[in-house]
Amino acid sequence: MACAAGVWKLIRQPTFGVLARLSRVGKCQHTGVMTSAVTRKQFSSDPPEHISRYPIPYKKDLPYDIVELMVEVETKGGFLPNVFKVLSHRPSEFRAFFAYYNALMNKETGALTKADRELIVVATSIHNHCLYCVVSHSALHRIYSKNPTLADQVTVNYESAQLNPRERAMLDFALAICRSDTITDAHFQELEAHGFDREDAWDIAAIASFFAMSNRLAHLTDMRPNTEFYSMGRVPREKDKDKSKGEGDDKSQCKAD
Amino acid sequence: MACAAGVWKLIRQPTFGVLARLSRVGKCQHTGVMTSAVTRKQFSSDPPEHISRYPIPYKKDLPYDIVELMVEVETKGGFLPNVFKVLSHRPSEFRAFFAYYNALMNKETGALTKADRELIVVATSIHNHCLYCVVSHSALHRIYSKNPTLADQVTVNYESAQLNPRERAMLDFALAICRSDTITDAHFQELEAHGFDREDAWDIAAIASFFAMSNRLAHLTDMRPNTEFYSMGRVPREKDKDKSKGEGDDKSQCKAD
Amino acid sequence: MACAAGVWKLIRQPTFGVLARLSRVGKCQHTGVMTSAVTRKQFSSDPPEHISRYPIPYKKDLPYDIVELMVEVETKGGFLPNVFKVLSHRPSEFRAFFAYYNALMNKETGALTKADRELIVVATSIHNHCLYCVVSHSALHRIYSKNPTLADQVTVNYESAQLNPRERAMLDFALAICRSDTITDAHFQELEAHGFDREDAWDIAAIASFFAMSNRLAHLTDMRPNTEFYSMGRVPREKDKDKSKGEGDDKSQCKAD
Amino acid sequence: MACAAGVWKLIRQPTFGVLARLSRVGKCQHTGVMTSAVTRKQFSSDPPEHISRYPIPYKKDLPYDIVELMVEVETKGGFLPNVFKVLSHRPSEFRAFFAYYNALMNKETGALTKADRELIVVATSIHNHCLYCVVSHSALHRIYSKNPTLADQVTVNYESAQLNPRERAMLDFALAICRSDTITDAHFQELEAHGFDREDAWDIAAIASFFAMSNRLAHLTDMRPNTEFYSMGRVPREKDKDKSKGEGDDKSQCKAD
Amino acid sequence: MACAAGVWKLIRQPTFGVLARLSRVGKCQHTGVMTSAVTRKQFSSDPPEHISRYPIPYKKDLPYDIVELMVEVETKGGFLPNVFKVLSHRPSEFRAFFAYYNALMNKETGALTKADRELIVVATSIHNHCLYCVVSHSALHRIYSKNPTLADQVTVNYESAQLNPRERAMLDFALAICRSDTITDAHFQELEAHGFDREDAWDIAAIASFFAMSNRLAHLTDMRPNTEFYSMGRVPREKDKDKSKGEGDDKSQCKAD
Amino acid sequence: MACAAGVWKLIRQPTFGVLARLSRVGKCQHTGVMTSAVTRKQFSSDPPEHISRYPIPYKKDLPYDIVELMVEVETKGGFLPNVFKVLSHRPSEFRAFFAYYNALMNKETGALTKADRELIVVATSIHNHCLYCVVSHSALHRIYSKNPTLADQVTVNYESAQLNPRERAMLDFALAICRSDTITDAHFQELEAHGFDREDAWDIAAIASFFAMSNRLAHLTDMRPNTEFYSMGRVPREKDKDKSKGEGDDKSQCKAD
Repeated sequence: MACAAGVWKLIRQPTFGVLARLSRVGKCQHTGVMTSAVTRKQFSSDPPEHISRYPIPYKKDLPYDIVELMVEVETKGGFLPNVFKVLSHRPSEFRAFFAYYNALMNKETGALTKADRELIVVATSIHNHCLYCVVSHSALHRIYSKNPTLADQVTVNYESAQLNPRERAMLDFALAICRSDTITDAHFQELEAHGFDREDAWDIAAIASFFAMSNRLAHLTDMRPNTEFYSMGRVPREKDKDKSKGEGDDKSQCKAD
Repeated sequence: MACAAGVWKLIRQPTFGVLARLSRVGKCQHTGVMTSAVTRKQFSSDPPEHISRYPIPYKKDLPYDIVELMVEVETKGGFLPNVFKVLSHRPSEFRAFFAYYNALMNKETGALTKADRELIVVATSIHNHCLYCVVSHSALHRIYSKNPTLADQVTVNYESAQLNPRERAMLDFALAICRSDTITDAHFQELEAHGFDREDAWDIAAIASFFAMSNRLAHLTDMRPNTEFYSMGRVPREKDKDKSKGEGDDKSQCKAD
Repeated sequence: MACAAGVWKLIRQPTFGVLARLSRVGKCQHTGVMTSAVTRKQFSSDPPEHISRYPIPYKKDLPYDIVELMVEVETKGGFLPNVFKVLSHRPSEFRAFFAYYNALMNKETGALTKADRELIVVATSIHNHCLYCVVSHSALHRIYSKNPTLADQVTVNYESAQLNPRERAMLDFALAICRSDTITDAHFQELEAHGFDREDAWDIAAIASFFAMSNRLAHLTDMRPNTEFYSMGRVPREKDKDKSKGEGDDKSQCKAD
Repeated sequence: MACAAGVWKLIRQPTFGVLARLSRVGKCQHTGVMTSAVTRKQFSSDPPEHISRYPIPYKKDLPYDIVELMVEVETKGGFLPNVFKVLSHRPSEFRAFFAYYNALMNKETGALTKADRELIVVATSIHNHCLYCVVSHSALHRIYSKNPTLADQVTVNYESAQLNPRERAMLDFALAICRSDTITDAHFQELEAHGFDREDAWDIAAIASFFAMSNRLAHLTDMRPNTEFYSMGRVPREKDKDKSKGEGDDKSQCKAD
Repeated sequence: MACAAGVWKLIRQPTFGVLARLSRVGKCQHTGVMTSAVTRKQFSSDPPEHISRYPIPYKKDLPYDIVELMVEVETKGGFLPNVFKVLSHRPSEFRAFFAYYNALMNKETGALTKADRELIVVATSIHNHCLYCVVSHSALHRIYSKNPTLADQVTVNYESAQLNPRERAMLDFALAICRSDTITDAHFQELEAHGFDREDAWDIAAIASFFAMSNRLAHLTDMRPNTEFYSMGRVPREKDKDKSKGEGDDKSQCKAD
Repeated sequence: MACAAGVWKLIRQPTFGVLARLSRVGKCQHTGVMTSAVTRKQFSSDPPEHISRYPIPYKKDLPYDIVELMVEVETKGGFLPNVFKVLSHRPSEFRAFFAYYNALMNKETGALTKADRELIVVATSIHNHCLYCVVSHSALHRIYSKNPTLADQVTVNYESAQLNPRERAMLDFALAICRSDTITDAHFQELEAHGFDREDAWDIAAIASFFAMSNRLAHLTDMRPNTEFYSMGRVPREKDKDKSKGEGDDKSQCKAD
């Protein structure tokens, strides 16, 4: 049940999701009333596990809009991904970071599926040896794609992973951006040969670029992934095995609880 | 005079600057009335020079808040840096980008001077072979530092540039982040030995990380620097030679008109 | 005649089979009785899934000693790791390969635990981007160490993994060997400072060297890991949770069935 | 009992010893009679020259099968290559190593000549900066190929060496394996265009892989080549100049004595 | 006026230039009378600015032919490039260096323009991170080409610089030489496709090779560029703007005096 | 008139020719008498063996000073190293090249022995994969040092070669220059700790720099070493074995004829 909410669920639904509202960064006013129930469920209940080299602010010391987002994410997803806690050390950067994240990862248009986006993150983040991003976005890829092994394959070697040619072309381009290669018309022609137009190219490149930043922030802070991410999406739920009706692409698998 | 305002002037003054307002990304409503005079001064008057691989939107097709920012930047700085035009192709990303930029580059606290921030951008952007960022931020460094040669030295080889030990430690750390090295306590100790505390370390790293993203977006779009940037800040203005009173550190030099 | 078993015979020694025992890992229950039915259940019954670029011999075409080993490994371990099938394409090389493997990985003396050995394999195999070895030996590490996340951490970045200093020194040396660095006295001194003597150094280096070979054979054959390896050892068995008596270090965890 | 010889027995097969025959290379003449005097001339009679970082066992402390091999190799070849002494520190690994070596380097089938095999070893071992393997296998290449300069050329730069296209394709593939590149169909097509089928590809790759291991063991032990190897095969014997009948490809040239 | 002579002027005119005479290295006698006026204008008048890690000889301690050259260069060019001072520490090497420089950079035949030669120097020197050569030869390129931005573009990233295909092919080859790549027929074919014959290829390669040496000598000596080089050729002279008659390609622009 | 020999004259100085003496190396005996017959025996008499990608001029077409040098070198040394033939394609560059070579390699002062200089050439030329320079200067090192194996060791891996600490420090610095590293005070301190002063540092660096150029010219021309170089100095001459009087350090060993 909490399981059904899935962190990813939240991400998928920008219309009434919190992340979508995140993009109202700097918003002038808001009227949202936070129920006391939600308020009491704190994201800071975790043990003093090391998740960052920098201090994690107490909820009471954070701006209201950031707390509101965190509570909603945690409530719906079952746990709060550590990146929220770690980056809340710098509220103004937190807002810009998640606004950007939302603009790229929850974009509704273009040829990239949610699984595609996560695969780009995995392929580029392993290039940068970013523990947080590889582990957390591999989990998200397993959830979105229902493929429990492809992210691991891409982590080890995307060149030998079981990708279709379209995915391969997508990752080739993402890696060119990741390595800061000089991009030429040949790159775009290769993408077009696999059905990606110029706007899709921008999407791929912008995700690779954004995670070029994220990976480095994770190195700075020694950001550690939540334990949940390691096994999430690896084993099908019993319920899903019984009835494979799958109401939504992000609900059919779930971490065992 | 318009010259005196300088692009950088704008950046320096977040209190009533446009860039500061930029961080109101996603703002719910606004009441600003755009005068017709401002409207008529268009940033799109430049010839069809190649500045991006992607189309540059007509002003009339851009969201009001973006136009407002562009007009103000151009009016005050004398010209509109091409990054504004190029990224306006994606308004929501534009907003997040400049909100982030503002949070990092116009931050008022900490040990980093404006010249320091620009030097970090130059040193990391040359590592990524980013023409736009090296040329434009070398110009800004010359302006802020009043040192007409250091940015060029860092562009060629920061290890042999005439840096003081503090600047050298700052760039060593910025480059470690730029290369996506695993960051350890030893990095922080080295910084502390040169007067940078943990918050300064975050500032250095966040700038290096943000430009890891920016450099790659510039490669994607083949973003070209405005011609003005190449020579800006290289030769002292006559006026400045006569009276060296210098009302502000960012006004004393200017591109020749 | 028993003599005819040759190299292979050697592998099965230390009484009823070290390698076989190794492969019992992850198996939920077994009766120890090898029925003829089991014998008839052939390892070649798998669907024509792609596990190698080279043909997999039919059991009937393989030398007796190789078949004998395979049946025993499969019976005891629950599945036959694909490396056995793939390398059986060359029986004489198969025998030398597993004799070597056995001498290194099942060595009973020295400071290295079974988990240590697997961690060396993971750390060096990811350097070589070897899908088969990273995935299968990460599984073995999870089983032996009962640590469900460390192998994933090492896969992404052993420099930021939660290693103790002894493990870090061990992997630093393994990676020096893996990169074919020139080894100097300083390497041995560093190892000694963490409790590894010269014989342990040989063990570490020999494992790293052997997998330098294995990784490349996997690239040659496009060897694919059995699906079982991806999730093995990630989630504790119910039985283990109830009673943590642990009769053997390689039997206490198991893949969910 | 004969069974007791284990792996090692295997190596000596194809009747009186492939490895031993291999080591006859470079020997000017021999009578085939193993006098007791020769037997008494021990391989451990060499001065305490540094040939390994690890202790070299006394003959009396070595297993019988290993001594037997060493005596035969030394008797027939004129000297005992140091790799035998160095690896005898670990008898079980010694046996597996030479069983593997024998399976690859003395394989009687396929398109690779003995000189081809040695050239693969030289080209990959210089990539790994392995002194022992480059020097000793360059000597073997000179002997087998009767070409006194090609191995030196490959040592410096195989891309500019005087190779025919077939040899070039062979080394290109060997180096791809050596670098742990991801192997694709294109590699096999390139080989096929030069007359190498899939089994030849395996041979090339297995040799490159085996020496990926050997090179690293040589780094571990600081294994030093016998002085004889440096000049072996560089100058033709007088006898060979007079009558170029060449009874065998490995006997026609010899180090000057 | 002195300005009009420009250091580059000197270089351009080997017929009566000093550099051309330089190639008479080792000449047994000469009759040149040095006017007292020239003698009095000393190149050693600069402040004790750091320009080399090695001592700069006093003029009185230098061989006559070297002094003569320096005085002439300084008189005509307005300032003496520091490379003359720094290398005069070793007179015999000085003579060979400038004889070689003259043979390559002032060669009158072939397809390379003076601007082409300078561009090769810039592109290869930035690869070697040579401050002196990048800064000084970027200045010369601006002067010769009248293009105030191309050298800066090449410094950051020649792959994204606004080069025509001919220039791109020229720099591709220069960089292949610079990296010490093995040169093949394919390199020459690519050059021929852009109008460069084999002698032009030699010219390109010889310049790249000579600066491979120069760059390293600059690293040895920590050679610093004269301040004049940084801004030279960036801003058009007033006089040139008024009358664009341009009597010579190297006189139309000049450093401000 | 003799004066007309220019640069080249310089090379022949220190009385009857340092370079010529250098090339006497490896020659078994000579009478010192230059008969007209010898004069007529032209260096261009060699078969159309491939030694350069560029045409080798006929002697009759070469300037007198170049022919004079070649004849002397060939007469005294027994054969003419191919570099003389290959570079004579460009007489003015030929003169500067050998003037520079002479200034560096035949310098009479400082701490570097002739063998040291050759070792620097070998160590840096293998870094650049230059066949001509590695093979020819390995030969010269064997001659000068009377050590028949050290150059081969350095070719494979100078880090594991049997160097004394002084030689190791010398090559470490040479390689730093070779790689175009930024040189710092630490480099000089390391050298001083092994007895090299600043002038020795210049010597080491200048040789490494000069061969950075030479190696690249060899790549350009596909310059091939004379066959004599491969075996020169490997086997002691009979005469030398008998009487070890050694009149000169460059005459005591010789290629077998």
